[in-house]
Amino acid sequence: MIDLQDLRRAIRPETVLITIMHANNELGAVQPLEEIGRIAKEADVYFHTDAVQSAGKIPIDVTTLQIDLLSISGHKLYAPKGIGALYVRGGTRLRQLLYGGHHQRGFRPGTENVAGIVGLGKAAEIARKALAEDTQRISALRDKLQQGLLQGVPHSRVNAGAAPRTPNTTNLVFPGVEGEALLIALDLKGLACSTGAACSSGAVEPSHVLTAIGLPPEEARASLRFSLGRHTTAADIDFALNVVPAAVAQLRELSPTYHKEATAHS
Amino acid sequence: MIDLQDLRRAIRPETVLITIMHANNELGAVQPLEEIGRIAKEADVYFHTDAVQSAGKIPIDVTTLQIDLLSISGHKLYAPKGIGALYVRGGTRLRQLLYGGHHQRGFRPGTENVAGIVGLGKAAEIARKALAEDTQRISALRDKLQQGLLQGVPHSRVNAGAAPRTPNTTNLVFPGVEGEALLIALDLKGLACSTGAACSSGAVEPSHVLTAIGLPPEEARASLRFSLGRHTTAADIDFALNVVPAAVAQLRELSPTYHKEATAHS
Repeated sequence: MIDLQDLRRAIRPETVLITIMHANNELGAVQPLEEIGRIAKEADVYFHTDAVQSAGKIPIDVTTLQIDLLSISGHKLYAPKGIGALYVRGGTRLRQLLYGGHHQRGFRPGTENVAGIVGLGKAAEIARKALAEDTQRISALRDKLQQGLLQGVPHSRVNAGAAPRTPNTTNLVFPGVEGEALLIALDLKGLACSTGAACSSGAVEPSHVLTAIGLPPEEARASLRFSLGRHTTAADIDFALNVVPAAVAQLRELSPTYHKEATAHS
Repeated sequence: MIDLQDLRRAIRPETVLITIMHANNELGAVQPLEEIGRIAKEADVYFHTDAVQSAGKIPIDVTTLQIDLLSISGHKLYAPKGIGALYVRGGTRLRQLLYGGHHQRGFRPGTENVAGIVGLGKAAEIARKALAEDTQRISALRDKLQQGLLQGVPHSRVNAGAAPRTPNTTNLVFPGVEGEALLIALDLKGLACSTGAACSSGAVEPSHVLTAIGLPPEEARASLRFSLGRHTTAADIDFALNVVPAAVAQLRELSPTYHKEATAHS
């Protein structure tokens, strides 16, 4: 979570924009947009939020939150890949990044992806209707998964578990395990997880997010992100609770250092 | 058509890129890429071409034409809207316009439009197979349309008719007619034409392309672009030849100046 005092201090006379991710993609942690919006308004600075991970998962009201600019991505809310949207509050002064034609008021020249646009609109409509029910059902499943993993995997911990979070994400550290190795072991059993963000796939550095919340590199590398969705079932959770503890135990057996560490911790 | 002497003279010591549209969107006129590629290579300058209007319509060989960078757009070759491609010759030094993730080697951050990419690949494959047959059939229909319009509409002329052109486009001037009025009259009968480029739709200025080839503003405004495609039939051409001359005659009847002009011309 960002420190609001830090944010206030970071605003300089020449500051024109505050941009803060609504929900973190790796942890699901939700930033206090209402307070940030108030700070931005007081400082007369535009406020942009990346709501890619939160749109369709938690309610967002650009008026209440005093948001001037908000980005969403279609495929995160069951629209097709290849389409997104930028909400722009009337009167916000912007300059385009791409030049060429007059499409979309000159801000995004090029023939519009009509099918994608319609898909995004429909997906947003469905997400809005399903929001309350999805939230309740998915967060119950997520909590069941998280509890089961904490119980089934000795020494495991939830990353950012105390922060307000989106209903669909949990991120756990399994000390003594290499996240990439666990990811592959689970994938072979049919369970898809993530060690970080798709944006950083192929990177060998530990997650900058996990490092920022204070995890030492070996714990950042021992963390795994579980994401649920509208189509996740109770049976999927049972399956995960069946395969993850076994896979962690197996990898720990092979670890030259884990047993000593575990003994030292307990 | 660009003047190759002009092009040579325009290259300065600091020039890094020549970028020229392969086929013009309004006229179908095809630029001499082979000569341009040679000039670019001699000057040690990168050569980019916008092949959006030509890809799938005329053969393009980036090796023969010495092209370093080539842009195509999916929907112009029957792929979905919302997808395009940039060919980049190995070793070409580029800097990205958009920043964020590592996708597409950092040049276009964001989750890839997988369905669109597959669609573009398949459409390109089909276009390549169909190219020779499409070219023959479509250019025959285009020539029939053009001849029929020249015969059916007194004082009409083809714009850039002497230039090498893509097989699917013809652009005619119908003196004494307002192109926008003709467009609407034809649309009401079920024939879709264009007075310019979609990129400039809503613009009130006469086409910069028609002005550049030397048309006075009143003739640029009296011009109409006809585009054929893989699904255009002989019956479509007959239909066009039935409705266009009648619509032009009707609009000329209403013109306060045309009869005098026509008499003066003949």
